[in-house]
Formats: sequence, C-alpha cells, structure tokens
Amino acid sequence: MNTIGNNIKLTSYGESHGPSVGAILDGLPSNFKIDRSYIQKQLDRRKPGQSSITTTRKEDDDFEITSGLFDDTTTGAPIHFTIENRNVRSQDYDHLKDVYRPNHADFTYQKKYEIRDFRGGGRSSARVTAGWVAGGALVQDFISKNHNVRISAYVRSIGKVTMENVPRYYDVNEVDASIVRCPDVVSASQMMEEISNAQAEKDSLGGVVECVINGMPAGVGDPVFRKLSAQLALAMMSINATKGFEIGGGFEMTKYRGSQINDSFSANKGKVITETNHSGGVQGGISNGMDIVFRVAFKPTATIGIEQNTINSLGEEVLLEAKGRHDPCVLPRAVPIVETMAALVLGDFLV
Amino acid sequence: MNTIGNNIKLTSYGESHGPSVGAILDGLPSNFKIDRSYIQKQLDRRKPGQSSITTTRKEDDDFEITSGLFDDTTTGAPIHFTIENRNVRSQDYDHLKDVYRPNHADFTYQKKYEIRDFRGGGRSSARVTAGWVAGGALVQDFISKNHNVRISAYVRSIGKVTMENVPRYYDVNEVDASIVRCPDVVSASQMMEEISNAQAEKDSLGGVVECVINGMPAGVGDPVFRKLSAQLALAMMSINATKGFEIGGGFEMTKYRGSQINDSFSANKGKVITETNHSGGVQGGISNGMDIVFRVAFKPTATIGIEQNTINSLGEEVLLEAKGRHDPCVLPRAVPIVETMAALVLGDFLV
Amino acid sequence: MNTIGNNIKLTSYGESHGPSVGAILDGLPSNFKIDRSYIQKQLDRRKPGQSSITTTRKEDDDFEITSGLFDDTTTGAPIHFTIENRNVRSQDYDHLKDVYRPNHADFTYQKKYEIRDFRGGGRSSARVTAGWVAGGALVQDFISKNHNVRISAYVRSIGKVTMENVPRYYDVNEVDASIVRCPDVVSASQMMEEISNAQAEKDSLGGVVECVINGMPAGVGDPVFRKLSAQLALAMMSINATKGFEIGGGFEMTKYRGSQINDSFSANKGKVITETNHSGGVQGGISNGMDIVFRVAFKPTATIGIEQNTINSLGEEVLLEAKGRHDPCVLPRAVPIVETMAALVLGDFLV
Amino acid sequence: MNTIGNNIKLTSYGESHGPSVGAILDGLPSNFKIDRSYIQKQLDRRKPGQSSITTTRKEDDDFEITSGLFDDTTTGAPIHFTIENRNVRSQDYDHLKDVYRPNHADFTYQKKYEIRDFRGGGRSSARVTAGWVAGGALVQDFISKNHNVRISAYVRSIGKVTMENVPRYYDVNEVDASIVRCPDVVSASQMMEEISNAQAEKDSLGGVVECVINGMPAGVGDPVFRKLSAQLALAMMSINATKGFEIGGGFEMTKYRGSQINDSFSANKGKVITETNHSGGVQGGISNGMDIVFRVAFKPTATIGIEQNTINSLGEEVLLEAKGRHDPCVLPRAVPIVETMAALVLGDFLV
Repeated sequence: MNTIGNNIKLTSYGESHGPSVGAILDGLPSNFKIDRSYIQKQLDRRKPGQSSITTTRKEDDDFEITSGLFDDTTTGAPIHFTIENRNVRSQDYDHLKDVYRPNHADFTYQKKYEIRDFRGGGRSSARVTAGWVAGGALVQDFISKNHNVRISAYVRSIGKVTMENVPRYYDVNEVDASIVRCPDVVSASQMMEEISNAQAEKDSLGGVVECVINGMPAGVGDPVFRKLSAQLALAMMSINATKGFEIGGGFEMTKYRGSQINDSFSANKGKVITETNHSGGVQGGISNGMDIVFRVAFKPTATIGIEQNTINSLGEEVLLEAKGRHDPCVLPRAVPIVETMAALVLGDFLV
Repeated sequence: MNTIGNNIKLTSYGESHGPSVGAILDGLPSNFKIDRSYIQKQLDRRKPGQSSITTTRKEDDDFEITSGLFDDTTTGAPIHFTIENRNVRSQDYDHLKDVYRPNHADFTYQKKYEIRDFRGGGRSSARVTAGWVAGGALVQDFISKNHNVRISAYVRSIGKVTMENVPRYYDVNEVDASIVRCPDVVSASQMMEEISNAQAEKDSLGGVVECVINGMPAGVGDPVFRKLSAQLALAMMSINATKGFEIGGGFEMTKYRGSQINDSFSANKGKVITETNHSGGVQGGISNGMDIVFRVAFKPTATIGIEQNTINSLGEEVLLEAKGRHDPCVLPRAVPIVETMAALVLGDFLV
Repeated sequence: MNTIGNNIKLTSYGESHGPSVGAILDGLPSNFKIDRSYIQKQLDRRKPGQSSITTTRKEDDDFEITSGLFDDTTTGAPIHFTIENRNVRSQDYDHLKDVYRPNHADFTYQKKYEIRDFRGGGRSSARVTAGWVAGGALVQDFISKNHNVRISAYVRSIGKVTMENVPRYYDVNEVDASIVRCPDVVSASQMMEEISNAQAEKDSLGGVVECVINGMPAGVGDPVFRKLSAQLALAMMSINATKGFEIGGGFEMTKYRGSQINDSFSANKGKVITETNHSGGVQGGISNGMDIVFRVAFKPTATIGIEQNTINSLGEEVLLEAKGRHDPCVLPRAVPIVETMAALVLGDFLV
Repeated sequence: MNTIGNNIKLTSYGESHGPSVGAILDGLPSNFKIDRSYIQKQLDRRKPGQSSITTTRKEDDDFEITSGLFDDTTTGAPIHFTIENRNVRSQDYDHLKDVYRPNHADFTYQKKYEIRDFRGGGRSSARVTAGWVAGGALVQDFISKNHNVRISAYVRSIGKVTMENVPRYYDVNEVDASIVRCPDVVSASQMMEEISNAQAEKDSLGGVVECVINGMPAGVGDPVFRKLSAQLALAMMSINATKGFEIGGGFEMTKYRGSQINDSFSANKGKVITETNHSGGVQGGISNGMDIVFRVAFKPTATIGIEQNTINSLGEEVLLEAKGRHDPCVLPRAVPIVETMAALVLGDFLV
C-alpha cells in the first residue's frame, strides 16, 4: 500500500511520466507556520539535473500545497502536496516496453499487476519520492523547531570509496559542500571521480548513506513490534534501491564480544549518557538519548547503458542497451530522501 | 505496540517472570489441520536450556491453545497460544532492580514507562518470543503446506567465525546437525569453540543469521510502503538484539558496479529466472520468484558476568557484575525466531 | 484521521474554499478499465447547484485523475482524484469568522485545533465529500461490474414526510426521476413542497436515506470487530450531518418478539434465502446473501438564515443570521455519498 | 478481525465452549494502579445466571491477568485477561450441529468459514464479550480516575415498554436498583413483566440501551474518518445482536426543522454550553463538552424455544425447537458491554 505511519501518515501517489506526483500528509499538529523555502530546499537537494553527476532530466520540482493551511499555518487538516512532471520524454522508454531491465522492478511489477506503465519506470521510479520529500521536509522542519530533533544524512561511501570519520551530526552546509554530499573533502573528491568514471563507461555505482539524529529525547519508541529501530528499518527499506539497514555498530558489531562493545552508562551533569555509542542511540527499541546513528545500503543504479542479457515479455532472451535518462549513482540525491523517511518515523512518535 | 501484520496479525503478551507468555494469531484461514508436533519442535529449537551453549534456565515451553480450533482444525477464529513460565528465579535479579545494564533495555524502559519489571528483563526479555514462535510456527507450517513456501534460517557467523558457503536452502536436519545451528560442520565446530571460550570468560558473542526462502512465487509484495523487503526488515529488527538487516547482496553489493552485480534474466523451461541472485529474490519490493535471501545482525548478549561501569537509578556510577541466567550467544536460539518472523511476513502477503 | 479502509483505502484532503478537494484511492486491482462518465455522473448527483432545492453555489465538479492509470486502465498504483473549487465567495463568510453556528462544527474545530478555516466551513464542509464520491464511484463501478454487487440509495423521508414502500433496489433512473431522489412519486412531490416551504422560511430540514445493496454473496464480513454492519455504520456516521444508522429492522425491530421477526430460512432452487429480511442481509456481522438494507439519519442543515442565539469566540452571547450559500436540505445530494461510502466498505471486503 | 482501536487496542479471543475466553489490552499508560474489584463488578453485571431473567448458564467469570502488571500497577506492557469457561454443556447443542437457527450467525459463519464450532454458538456467542468487558472495565476505570470521564449505560426500552425520562447520567446504583437495569422504577417493573411473559412463552425480546457520558472535555474526536460519533457507531455495532445506533436526537431529530432542534450556544461562568443537547455532545465528529448521549438497538434474542421453520446444512427444510441455555432478553446484560465499548473508544482518544 502507499501509506506510511500511524500518527503522522504520508500517502503517496504518482508515476514518473504522469501529470504529477504528490502526497497527503496527515496528522501534523495545527498552528505550525510552514517554511516553504525549507521544503523547496529539500526538494532541490533531491531533484534531478542538479549537478553533473545526476540524471540529465531537468525538473524544477516546484511544489504546490492545495489543502491543510490557513495563512500558511497548519490547521490540523491533511496537507496535500503536488509537484508537476514537466520534463517528460516518454518516447525514450519505448524500447523498454516489452523488455525487463535486470535488477529493476519491470519484471516484478508485470508479474504482480499484469500491466505496467513502462514510461520512466512508472510507479517504481524514484521520481515518486519527490512527493515524500515535500511531506517529509515539513515534518523535519516541525520536529527541528518544536522538538529540537535534527536529522543529518550524508554519503558515507560510494563504490569502494568510504569516508572513515566517526559518525556525527553535520550541518547541511558541510554536507552540501560537495555535490556528492560527503562532508569529508578528500573522500568527496574521490567519490566524484569514481562516479565520473562509471558514468563515462555507461556503468553505475551504489553506496551507503549514513544518518545521525541529534537532540533525541530518551524514551522514544514502542516495544515490541513498533521499535524505533524497526520503524526506521521499514522506512529506509521503503526507499528505492535499498538493500540493507544497520543501526549503531550494525553488522560490524557482531564480530566483537559484549565486553568490547557494551556502551557503559555514566552521568554527565545529571544527564545519563553512554561512553560509546555502539547502540546507535536505541536500546530495546527505545531511544536512550544519545545520537541515533544508522546506515542504509543502496545498490548500484539498475539501469545502465552497457549491453546486458535479459528477456522480453515473451520470455525470449534479448540484449538490452538501456536508454533514457538515469543517474550513474543515486547516492547524492538519496540524502534528503533518507532524511525525509527518518523525519516521518520520528514525527510519528513525537507528535 | 504489540501487534504485527495486516492480514495475519500476531499480538504478543507476557514477561520473563510473569505467569505466562503468549500470543493471539488472527487471520489464518479456516480448515487448516494444525500439526502440534511442528509447533512444539520450533518451540524446542528456541527454548532455553536446550544445550550446553544456551542459558541454564530450563523451560519445557509446552504450549496450550485455548481458542480458534475445532478438532484441531482452524475455524477462522483467533488462535490463542499460551506458554507457562515455570523455572522462574526472580530473586536472582534483585541486584538489577536499581541498576541499568549496559546495552540492555533497562534504562530506556525506565525512561519511557517510569516503572520497570526488572525480573529477568520483564517485557524486554527474549522470553516473550516464545509466544511469537508458537504463532509463527503455525503460519510457517501453513505456508509450507498450502503455498509450498519453505523457510530455512541458520547461523552464518558468530563473532569472527563465518561460514563461507553460498546461501541456499538447508533442511532443518542439516541446520540442527550441530547445536550451534550452522550447517557447515567445520564452521560449526569453530563457532562452538568461540562460544565456549566467551562463556568461560563470562563474556558474550553476537553474530549473523542468514535466511533463505524457497518456493516463492513471483509477484509477492506491495509497493511503495509495504515492500516485501521492508516488511522483512521491520519484522527482523523487531527481534531482540538485532542491529542490522540486509537482503541479497546487501552492504557488500554497494561496492560493485551495476554491470557487475545486475542479475541477468533468462528463461528456464518457461520460467523466468536470474543467473545470479544479488537481488535476494526481491526487486522493487516484489518477489521475482528466486530464493529470498537475507541476513540479520545480532549484537553480543548485553548481559555479561564481567564487571562493567554503569549507573544506578539515582544516577550514581556503580560497578556491575551481572548475575541471573543468560545466553553467552543467542544466535542458535535466534534461528527459529527469524523463521517465525519471516513466516509472519510471508503469511501476511500469501493468505 | 483522513483515511478509511484496509484493503481499499481512501485518503481525503481539501477544504471548502481552498484551491481543490481530492482523494487518493489505494488498493483497487489492476486492469480495470475506468468509466469516466460514471464517475462524473455520481459527482453530478452530488454537486451543488444541481436543482432548485440545493445550495446556489455552482460547481461543475469536473474531476481530474493524475495517477494510477495507463490508457484509462488501473495499474494497481494509487489513483489520485482532484476537483477544483471554482465558485468560491469567501467574503460571504467573514461574519462567521468569530461566531459559532449552532449545531455546526465551528466551535468543536476551534476547541480542538485552536485555529479554523472559517470560509465555507473549511475542512468540516460537505464539499470535501466530492473527493470521496469520485473515488467511491470508481469502486462502485468496479464491484458492480466485477462482483455484480449493485448499490441503490434513495431518500426515504424528509422531515415528517416518509415514503412507506418496502425497501428494494431501485434503478438510478427511478431514484433520479425527481430532484429530491425519492423514487415514490407522491412522496417525492410532498417532500419537495416541504423543502420549498422550509427554504422560503430560511429554515432547514433533515431526513433519512435508505440504501439497498443487491447481489451480495453470502459470507462477506469479518467477526468480531470488523463486522460488515459495523463497518457500514462507521462509514455512514463519517458523512457530515449524520446522527443515526440502522440495518434491517433497526430500532423498530426492538419492539417485537423473536418469534415475530426472526427470518426463517428456506431453500429456493438450491440457494438459501430467508422468507423475510428483518436482518437486513447481515447476521453475526456477515452477509447472508439477501439484500443489505440500511438507513442513515441526517439532521436538518445546521446553517439557517433564521436568527439564532449563539456566542462568539470571546464567549459573548450574540445573535446570528447566517449568510453564505447552503442547502435547505442535504438529503437529495447525500444519496450518492451514501452509495460512495457503501461502495468503499464493500470494496474493502470484496477485493 | 479481532482487534479494535488504534492507541488503545483490544484483541479478543475465545469461544463459548472452549477452555477460556480472553483479551489483550494494549496501550494503557503505565503507572495506573488497577482496581480488581471494579473489573470483577463489571464482569458480574455481564455474567450469565446473575438473575431470574438471564440464561441459566452459571459462570462466575473470575478473571486472571497474566501480564502487563507489576505490583498490580500497569507497566505499559500489554495486559492479558483470561476467563475460564466452566459451566459448559456442549451436548445441549448437538441438535444444532447441522441446523441453522433463524437470525443467528450459524448460516453465515458456515458460508464464510466452511467449518463451524456449533457448541453454544462458538465464536459468534456473546460469551466472548466477557473478555471485552474485562479489558474495557479497566479502561473505564482509568478514564474515570485520570480524565474524570464517566460512562453510564442503562436500559431505555424492552419490547414496547420505554422509559420516557430525559437522558442523563445515572449512578451505577440507580441503574442496578432493578435486575433489568432500567433506572426508572415503574418502567423497570413493566419490563420485567414483559420478559417473564416472553420467557414463559419460550419467546424473546429486544430493546434499546441508552448511554450517557459525563465529564467529556470539548475537542475530542478526529475528522473526517475518525469521528467520535463514527467510532462509537463502529464499537456499538460490533456488539452481538445490535441493529442500530443513534446519537443525540438521532432518527427522531430528522423530523424537525433546523430552527427547532439547533442547540444554541451560551456561556455559563466562562464555559461554553448548549441550551439543548440534540447533538448528543458531538458536532462535526468532535465532542463539544456536553454529555455524550447515544442509543443502541438490540434485536430480540435469535434463539427461541418456539418451533421455527429453517433449513439444515443439506438445504432441507426442517422444524427447529432450539434447546440450550439462552437469555430471553439480553438487554440487562448488554449494559456493561455498551459501557465497555464506549470506554474503549474514549480511551483510544484520551490516552
């Protein structure tokens, strides 16, 4: 289904090449003054064509809100965001009409629905996340201003290039200092080179986005089947192209003994803190007041220009050289989407 | 909250040292003849005291069903499973009444609820998964018999010992050939040694459970916010002590180029298959008919006998040497729990 | 919240005087060819200004669909309906900015949200049902064509004028033979006179809509907390101005003995039927295959031109003579809304 | 499904003649000291065999709580209530094994599930409401003590005998002054006579329960699809044998003009009140601070001793003289069930 959340619900609609994509955000408290520039900024961080390393599809992603506001203040009514699809070149996708791209959703959608909007990937396109980001940005602004909870996502690795810093909250300016959205200058430069190389060879790259949430109060999250960590996993694994989620020490942490990675509690001016943060801010599914730290794995973009073996809808083996505009690496644009989904999860608990 | 699922719902209750734990399973179709021995077998694989490398708490985990059956056949009514807590030694936990164990849920529960059943971890104890396994085993049996979908979890790594085989479906006898539930004989032996060492040193270990689901039809899963992969992530991250989830190639896959890890489609006697399975059986959130393969990271058991720095409920720094019975490594017992949660997710889509 | 349904979800947005109202319909199966004229027809039956006995606000209520279709065929993706608000005269409502209309939602919205879009009633306006009807009409068409389940609502009473016929399915042409949507010619004529009189005296009327659902298979509905009858009650009581719901014999039935109103089963060419239908087609929350019959009570329109005592936002007692355009009696326009909500409930069970 | 509520969820299980019935209550805040005697009292008001006008099945309905408490104080964990079925005489129902009682759920359950626990009605028996009442009574106690919201249900009519008083809050002692639970002495006496007569003639009666909720704050309820009035309708129509729901003026209100039944606002020492309460305390789906008043229609008990025409599972027409123990009129025992369901709805909004 296309709704996520309990107290704050986001319902998504739209396809890559339809007239518009959008979302309804339901449950945000009344009397919050919206900041349109913040929403637009997050949309701009997500939009295609924003830099030389993203798809060349060019969309301004101006959003419109058609309900839920009175003098730009929330009324408690659902808020409808809509974003036009303008730069649509559906004919580019005619060669994909009857062919299944490897690692893409073409085949599975066809199996499930027995009909498929093949233009730009239709509903399976990451284009639909524009609607999510519009709604999520509003929630992100709300929890930042009303709960002092701030979310910072950034690119941790692309291909084999990994930034080795300890996770921490980065200001958006630090993150956006490079178009690749890795706050470490040296790593960022190497990542951009990796992407350029892949792009030149009509190939694609994946990577890891890391997210740090600062200012979390302790006590947020609901055992046993609505753990904060589980809700974050659900939200992140809902993003296109994600193949993994880990929190705190994650998979690496499994290699150590309890005595090595247990986070000792101590008291700091009356506030309980932990000396280390292998837990990633969540214990027993509930926040402990430390920064929440998690990582999301994105596979390489499925659509590549290199020739691949695949089959068509008749089950015949064919060779495919995909055309259409697509990102050699979605990571830089995934950063605001990860923030969006984190905001939706946190908002769901905090409102 | 304590309910998971939409079409098949499992609602959990109980604490480590209360009279019983249990669950209500709602939504299973009528006219399914239950196999009590299968449910008991899965409970036995989860139960404490089953081998030398698990906690010494001894529970038979006999289950009782008090509703939803007529002549051991499902009627469509909710099915209530209850399992007594018999071997309870609450006095062992008195020293934890006012102390927060590092990496455990003691502190976060106290912050959230301002009251805490400290005996054996109360609601945060993995004891409550006995109720899940009872319900999940019934669903697992159902989808195996009615949909030919079979779930096989096993221990992939413990600490730094990793079984290097390619993921595949293992029969339960292969998995249970060793008490550590790793189907590779050599790795199993090394893992058991690791656990014995940690146990002797009052320390603990984590690891990774891998799960392979065989017999999946293509077309199962719901974009965009109820992806099969996202629901599996939610379910797995609901298990105690989990810190990560990945599907198919997961995090490792982010290091390769699209051309290297795209799964080419081909036709095999009319059935569409992929040559490789980096996707882990899910594309665009929907199954593609290949085996579903995922991994779950479990941190080392939080409770250890080694002295640790922590604080008490007054915020004073104290030294803790935890007593009470606990597993040096939960992985062997986590295997049926992973299967259970996978069964609940699949059942939710398949019924 | 603004979403209804489980398998088929409708999410509503919009206000009386915002740019548009709309809805997202999620869960309709793929490969259904939509009939735009049917949707428009139901919207026309609901729209203001359609006859001399409705509000003089004039809206064409043309709808647009911006997602979920491919060649006017459903793809399984969510379907977004949007309807512009064109004939908006917000200044008519300035006198209501700080005054609470008796029996209206002005006061309660203000108490709940501490902000209120007073223009035309904002979110509490029945204008928002245009979005519901667009989505519901599509579902109604779907269950009619794919399940042979047909819904017929009509006006049973207005004020003290009641049509005395036995409930039965009426074709839409029979219902729409009069602008009051009562299929009995004599009653219809009396009802119209009642409305004209009330209108002339700046007063308002309520009434009862009856709904008959024909072609129901037996076995639809879910005990114990998702009874078909309970879901219908929820849906009908979600419509603006409703104060009561009854099914089959309803309140009247409570005055008789079991022996008088029990519906005897008999067999009719292999099909089980009941001789009478005091049950209204539902027993134990599940359909029995007879026509479903229920009634919905609508209070008189709250907004009237007659002077009334009320208070303003300062708590001062004031006299109010409401202006703005409103219906003297909403019943004729409520008919397609009742059908819509019934279709959403049935669709939720049937898909 | 068998779960009701969003923030407070009650999940029900059990059948008339299984080992036990019960419920899990999830979402009640922590640190509420439970009053076992209050819960038992409500169970006693519901239990069979409590007076000469109820079924002769004799159950003490002692309840047990097996989770969610620590020193009889809520911990935030789910609370499991269980009540044994002791006085079971399943053999009384053998004659119903293959026969469908008119107006009962026998036929519809068989159609839906193709299997049926015919002993005492199985899952369709009102016996299962014992579990609801246990959970609901706890919520009722909670909202009374923590929110000062008090619920009072009583019998308004039985058959053709109606108490003509204006609706108001009655203390439980006033309600329980007669075994029929009508607080008006004269009406109560007439009702008891009606029941005795019906009982003597092996017939049954229905009636109306009225419920008044006192102490409601204004602003409770959620437009547009989670209206307080709609949630109450859903909850009441989930009770066995209900055929109608109305709030405030209800169906009768449809016969008057707006000017006659609009509730004028006025100010009373700073508090906004309405002069009349035709709205029943809810406007636009949100409470206005006045008493909430609603009524629920219960059909006559379906099972009667008088011979009736019906069919058996082979579709053959047969004569049925129902045996087994059943109430000639469920109204007196329905009173605490109505309170329970109201408490669950209110608790869902208030916590």
